[in-house]
Amino acid sequence: MRMVVIGGDAAGITAASHVRRARPDAEIVVLERTPYTSYSMCGIPAYIGEEIATAADLVVRWPEQLRQAGIDVRTGVEAVAVDAEARTVATRDVATGAAASEAYDVLLLANGAHPALPPLPGVEHAQVVHTLDEGEALRTRLDAGGPDQRVVVVGAGYIGLELAEALVHRGLDARLVDLAEQVMPSLDPPIAARVAEALEQHGVALHLGEGLVEVRLADDGSREVVTTAGRYPADTVVLALGAAPNVELAASAGCALGDSGAVAVDGRMRTSVPGIWAAGDVVESRHLVTGRGVNIQLGTHANKQGKVAGIDIASQPGDGAATFPGVVGTAITKVCATEVARTGVSAAEAEAAGLEAAEVRFEGTAKAGYMPDPGHVEVVMRAEVGSGRIVGCQLVGGPGVGKRIDVAATWVQLGVSAPQAQFLDLSYAPPFGGVWDVLAVGARKLTKELGLDPQL
Amino acid sequence: MRMVVIGGDAAGITAASHVRRARPDAEIVVLERTPYTSYSMCGIPAYIGEEIATAADLVVRWPEQLRQAGIDVRTGVEAVAVDAEARTVATRDVATGAAASEAYDVLLLANGAHPALPPLPGVEHAQVVHTLDEGEALRTRLDAGGPDQRVVVVGAGYIGLELAEALVHRGLDARLVDLAEQVMPSLDPPIAARVAEALEQHGVALHLGEGLVEVRLADDGSREVVTTAGRYPADTVVLALGAAPNVELAASAGCALGDSGAVAVDGRMRTSVPGIWAAGDVVESRHLVTGRGVNIQLGTHANKQGKVAGIDIASQPGDGAATFPGVVGTAITKVCATEVARTGVSAAEAEAAGLEAAEVRFEGTAKAGYMPDPGHVEVVMRAEVGSGRIVGCQLVGGPGVGKRIDVAATWVQLGVSAPQAQFLDLSYAPPFGGVWDVLAVGARKLTKELGLDPQL
Repeated sequence: MRMVVIGGDAAGITAASHVRRARPDAEIVVLERTPYTSYSMCGIPAYIGEEIATAADLVVRWPEQLRQAGIDVRTGVEAVAVDAEARTVATRDVATGAAASEAYDVLLLANGAHPALPPLPGVEHAQVVHTLDEGEALRTRLDAGGPDQRVVVVGAGYIGLELAEALVHRGLDARLVDLAEQVMPSLDPPIAARVAEALEQHGVALHLGEGLVEVRLADDGSREVVTTAGRYPADTVVLALGAAPNVELAASAGCALGDSGAVAVDGRMRTSVPGIWAAGDVVESRHLVTGRGVNIQLGTHANKQGKVAGIDIASQPGDGAATFPGVVGTAITKVCATEVARTGVSAAEAEAAGLEAAEVRFEGTAKAGYMPDPGHVEVVMRAEVGSGRIVGCQLVGGPGVGKRIDVAATWVQLGVSAPQAQFLDLSYAPPFGGVWDVLAVGARKLTKELGLDPQL
Repeated sequence: MRMVVIGGDAAGITAASHVRRARPDAEIVVLERTPYTSYSMCGIPAYIGEEIATAADLVVRWPEQLRQAGIDVRTGVEAVAVDAEARTVATRDVATGAAASEAYDVLLLANGAHPALPPLPGVEHAQVVHTLDEGEALRTRLDAGGPDQRVVVVGAGYIGLELAEALVHRGLDARLVDLAEQVMPSLDPPIAARVAEALEQHGVALHLGEGLVEVRLADDGSREVVTTAGRYPADTVVLALGAAPNVELAASAGCALGDSGAVAVDGRMRTSVPGIWAAGDVVESRHLVTGRGVNIQLGTHANKQGKVAGIDIASQPGDGAATFPGVVGTAITKVCATEVARTGVSAAEAEAAGLEAAEVRFEGTAKAGYMPDPGHVEVVMRAEVGSGRIVGCQLVGGPGVGKRIDVAATWVQLGVSAPQAQFLDLSYAPPFGGVWDVLAVGARKLTKELGLDPQL
């Protein structure tokens, strides 16, 4: 069996490593466009912010280590097209432009996503930061600049926000611009407002409701960012407008795409074309609340999906199967000491999915209220009208608050109802909350809101 | 309807308040032995440690507030016996000794637990700290003493440990003695060992494997604690040897006790005697992993049980019922920056219950491993052989680690299997962990250990 993997990060290397162990007979080739394999994309903001010293610190397994393990990694090689009939991948050497072809029995598309550039004048004068080599380029540029560098980040999603925080962390003048009226579109507006406050307190100049119009290059090499509401001089401009899955290869192979525009796969990560699997940021996952297809780009999904694909690819008659069940949209980030996390559907997502949900919103403390410095937590939780199942939760608060979302994520994924959730034996001691955990309070309030029993 | 409640803390006041709102016709009398109602017993160590200024800060509702709300609270009144035939409670005024009797239609036993004193010489020279007035007495004693006071705490369960930490916090010389070879008997030994280290680093002199023999009173008013291994001079001795449920009243009424020795109740908190309910520290709860009766004294259970009892007592034909489902033994505490939490069964508890479980034990980080100061987490997790359901988890680590137990508590209470748990969409970002959350790692390791599919 000859397996070709396109993309050498989380999903691709996880799958390749599994097949390597399970099928000693297999020949495994990994094609990776950049010089790096198997690194933490999510750690790039911390590296930009000098919390992490070198790009190498983010690498889990180097190409040479993988080669020693029997995986034929080719860095600097880009896949250009797939011929699913002939079972070949047309490739191009990034440095020399030399074209070649790789035959496969099994193909895994793990070629991720990449920032989409808006069709606006001057965007070529901005940086994008998605892959580690792009992160290195930005870091090198900032390291070479003076202490008074001005950086404008366009796009206030997770990445934009984390980059802006990182820039302030290293003492630079950071400005964050977004067309939307709130940061992080997947947050409910009241929660997003707390995050915006934290950004501003941290020293990020925040411009919401301003669309990018143009990036201008001045004679002195500096930039000017022109928005619908202002003009901001900058030494560096970073575009963080979200990344689109790299579906061109899949499309060239004839693989069906899902409603989200990402590559459609079944639970075993098989595309619609025999012999081709896909995993990671390039695929569509099923959202377990709405039942709809979504493209959520996260290392945690990429790892699991890569493993599931690897298990299916390596499986022999009689082997157990693995199925990736889907996602519930859990996510977490922080701005300094302010942690924010979400799971399930936001109000906007519930409405878009035609899901009728009751919502409660309240404030609580991270410790018992009488403790010194009890902390502050703001919670939004929602449950489906009728069934009472909890379908969404968002939290914002101080240190230790964010990871509490995993409790609600478990409830959402398992379809736990609000009346059931209020009775769960969650931990209690005064340094950790009140006798009613904040999430149990949410379940209790939702039970009341929905008129269900018992109302504790 | 005349409702008499014995005990004016969490369970009793929660029930009384519910009945007050639901049944305007009811006459409600609460008998409380101490001067205080509705306070946080769990906050007493923080008050002893001067983190909290006054005992009043721990009071949620004062007797006078409750009276204004239409609940006839009688403080300083002790219930002595119950005549379930005549439906009367014999009472005694704590100050004057005056005897009286209260008739009831409905009786709620919410009279809690109290520290059992061992039958050893000199124990009358030691303090116990369970109720708020006892907490006040200890705090007053310590406040009156000098800065070099030596305090010996006997008993290294949750309370003893929290008291020892609090004593060091206020600068006193604290020594903690326990007959057992580990602190906190409900912890697995490797987790307990980390807690012991934290205590010693904090400055608590820890003496494990030493049984109390005698408390001696010296001529100068100081004490000497004699153990099986040493003699320790002390200005104050605190006995924290665990509290036994106050079942005498229930027994006088003819209420059945459970296997744990606490008052047996059904899901609606009804005892075996018509007209008598019980809730809080005095009752036995069903452990949802083992199916056995357990007496777990925690404010979070007392609140829920009080509410369930109140709903049942106040219910009229056609009203919905409430059922307290049971507990899974979730608990949390901390020693300075070291947080420890547990849920489900320990190895010893699993063995005692005849539950065959596979166990994994491993270390991880609280942030991604490449982040500065990634933190340290030690995890023990176990799942039942055959079903694969997760039946126990214990965690110890730095700030923010403890509350993660609620995820595992949800798994244990809902019977989630290890293969299922490994696929849950738990939050991920580098400041909060690796792409595999530590709890998901536990589920993954258990899936392998048990030979279940899929092995991710």
